[in-house]
Amino acid sequence: MNDLFLRVCRGESVERLPVWMMRQAGRYMSEYRAIREKHGFLTMCKTPELAAEVTLQPVELVGVDAAILFADILLPLEAMGAELKFVQGDGPVFPQPIRSTADLGRVRVPDVEATLGYVYDALRLIRKELDGRVPLLGFGGTPWTLATYLVEGGTSKSFGHVLGWSYADPKGFAKLLDLLAETSALYLEGQIDAGAQAIQLFDTWGGLLDRRRWREIALPPVLKIVERLRGKVPLVYYIRDAAHLLPELRELPVEVLSVDWRMPLDEVRSAVGGRFVLQGNLDPTVLLAPPETIVEKTRELIEAGRGGAHVVNLGHGILPTTDPDHARLFVKTVQEISATP
Amino acid sequence: MNDLFLRVCRGESVERLPVWMMRQAGRYMSEYRAIREKHGFLTMCKTPELAAEVTLQPVELVGVDAAILFADILLPLEAMGAELKFVQGDGPVFPQPIRSTADLGRVRVPDVEATLGYVYDALRLIRKELDGRVPLLGFGGTPWTLATYLVEGGTSKSFGHVLGWSYADPKGFAKLLDLLAETSALYLEGQIDAGAQAIQLFDTWGGLLDRRRWREIALPPVLKIVERLRGKVPLVYYIRDAAHLLPELRELPVEVLSVDWRMPLDEVRSAVGGRFVLQGNLDPTVLLAPPETIVEKTRELIEAGRGGAHVVNLGHGILPTTDPDHARLFVKTVQEISATP
Repeated sequence: MNDLFLRVCRGESVERLPVWMMRQAGRYMSEYRAIREKHGFLTMCKTPELAAEVTLQPVELVGVDAAILFADILLPLEAMGAELKFVQGDGPVFPQPIRSTADLGRVRVPDVEATLGYVYDALRLIRKELDGRVPLLGFGGTPWTLATYLVEGGTSKSFGHVLGWSYADPKGFAKLLDLLAETSALYLEGQIDAGAQAIQLFDTWGGLLDRRRWREIALPPVLKIVERLRGKVPLVYYIRDAAHLLPELRELPVEVLSVDWRMPLDEVRSAVGGRFVLQGNLDPTVLLAPPETIVEKTRELIEAGRGGAHVVNLGHGILPTTDPDHARLFVKTVQEISATP
Repeated sequence: MNDLFLRVCRGESVERLPVWMMRQAGRYMSEYRAIREKHGFLTMCKTPELAAEVTLQPVELVGVDAAILFADILLPLEAMGAELKFVQGDGPVFPQPIRSTADLGRVRVPDVEATLGYVYDALRLIRKELDGRVPLLGFGGTPWTLATYLVEGGTSKSFGHVLGWSYADPKGFAKLLDLLAETSALYLEGQIDAGAQAIQLFDTWGGLLDRRRWREIALPPVLKIVERLRGKVPLVYYIRDAAHLLPELRELPVEVLSVDWRMPLDEVRSAVGGRFVLQGNLDPTVLLAPPETIVEKTRELIEAGRGGAHVVNLGHGILPTTDPDHARLFVKTVQEISATP
């Protein structure tokens, strides 16, 4: 039984660093593609046996120290009443985006058991199949990040609709975030009840906001969720592209702060204080480089993280073009190097 | 004759702040759309009369204090031998991207007069038509930012190809950057000869790199260009998404540093030192908000910039969905507020 990840999250000392990779169940693996070719992405999310199978693939084939539920951060938005499609090449699409207070009537806090029960079934099945081999993370998006997709109608380059609404009608927009926070809290409480041993919150687009607006807009609904989950399991907060926000994160009441590759971990630690376990932050494109570069950069990463507790991970999701042998090399390098004092 | 912009760049005192907007000649104006409906984007760039007409529109209809050449940062890549298309909805596409040292044979330093003479003709025509009303900026992309498009084959989400090449074969990739630097230096020298009174370098994707890699990879070719242009006209360096890079920018030998909206200008100034004129940095989505919000945020921006010289601008290009009256309100507000002590 490998509980390194949970022990690091709890602040306990460990014999070596745990390592896992964001999007580790993904297209870079031929075993994943074989399943994906036969099933739509949403079908995979909604079929517990398939979700469990791909969740376990990187544990068995890459040797990571934690599993993370195969799902999508946008599933609870569909449960709230927003039609969601995954379009080949374009990613997620909400054909009827929510763009004003008047549109709020089209979404509601759902009965999470009735609408998202398939996620809970998947978690229970994965826990059973893992049988204690490694811990299992659940996850969700932060309300701000979920709102960017729901308001833009999918991914965006300029984020004009969501930023525009947030300036034009801050009170109406706050109502949307509050709905998203309540839904997320219920959804993630359910994940914990179903067996998730830690929860990662993805604030992928938090870095779009300046410091004051992040504090005023994005932070309150995160705190609402965190207050509901705190103490049950370790909480990981991931934020991308947020060097300018680090001073704001100092007081965030979560155990683990997960950051992208833009700043070395020792500088992140200086900026946020010593309280956090840090998670990250190898540039995922390093795994496209030759083996010797992967080993060198992994070594540097572990060195930069030595000032405190560290869960080794990438700074963003593993790229679909990654050679699985390179992913294995990264994982193995962490496990070997960090075991030596 | 309004030379506020140039006087601020030279460090002279001014009676009020100059203001212009990135992408100010653009789709938010019906007068621009009327021309764009009749001509392809590349045709507009390559027809000096059309480029001149849209360059002047925001001077005449919005009242900005500087004109910027209507062109695209990717034009010199086409001149280097890379086929370039603008595809409706997808933006720029290079059907045959450059992804390895072997591909370098497909691009070369061009005869800029022969291949980009239309840009120089446009600049001469614009200067003549402006007749001194406001200064005229030329511009180009930094080699790193140009490389992201040429290697990815267009815009990208993960930048796996360009980052992957930069890790896998740093020497070969440096050769590409060197070709891009030499081309850019020649191209921008030509712009100055043709009448550009300042040059803005767009490092739109510089913020993808961590601090050490930005210094090792992106900075040297920028310095090569800057060394060639320095002292001829004021140089503006624009970088987006780069709070983590600010300490590296302190010594950059340019007059003006232009930043996005993620950090208030007083904090940017603390991070980079007092030497720079700062340009920016209103969040372009503020212009989607009601008039009172635009006035309030513009007032805050001017306040944040008071610690030193300031060219007022947006933090990124104006959005196509902006109401032109809102753009005019922004410009007028700067011109009025900053004139009062």
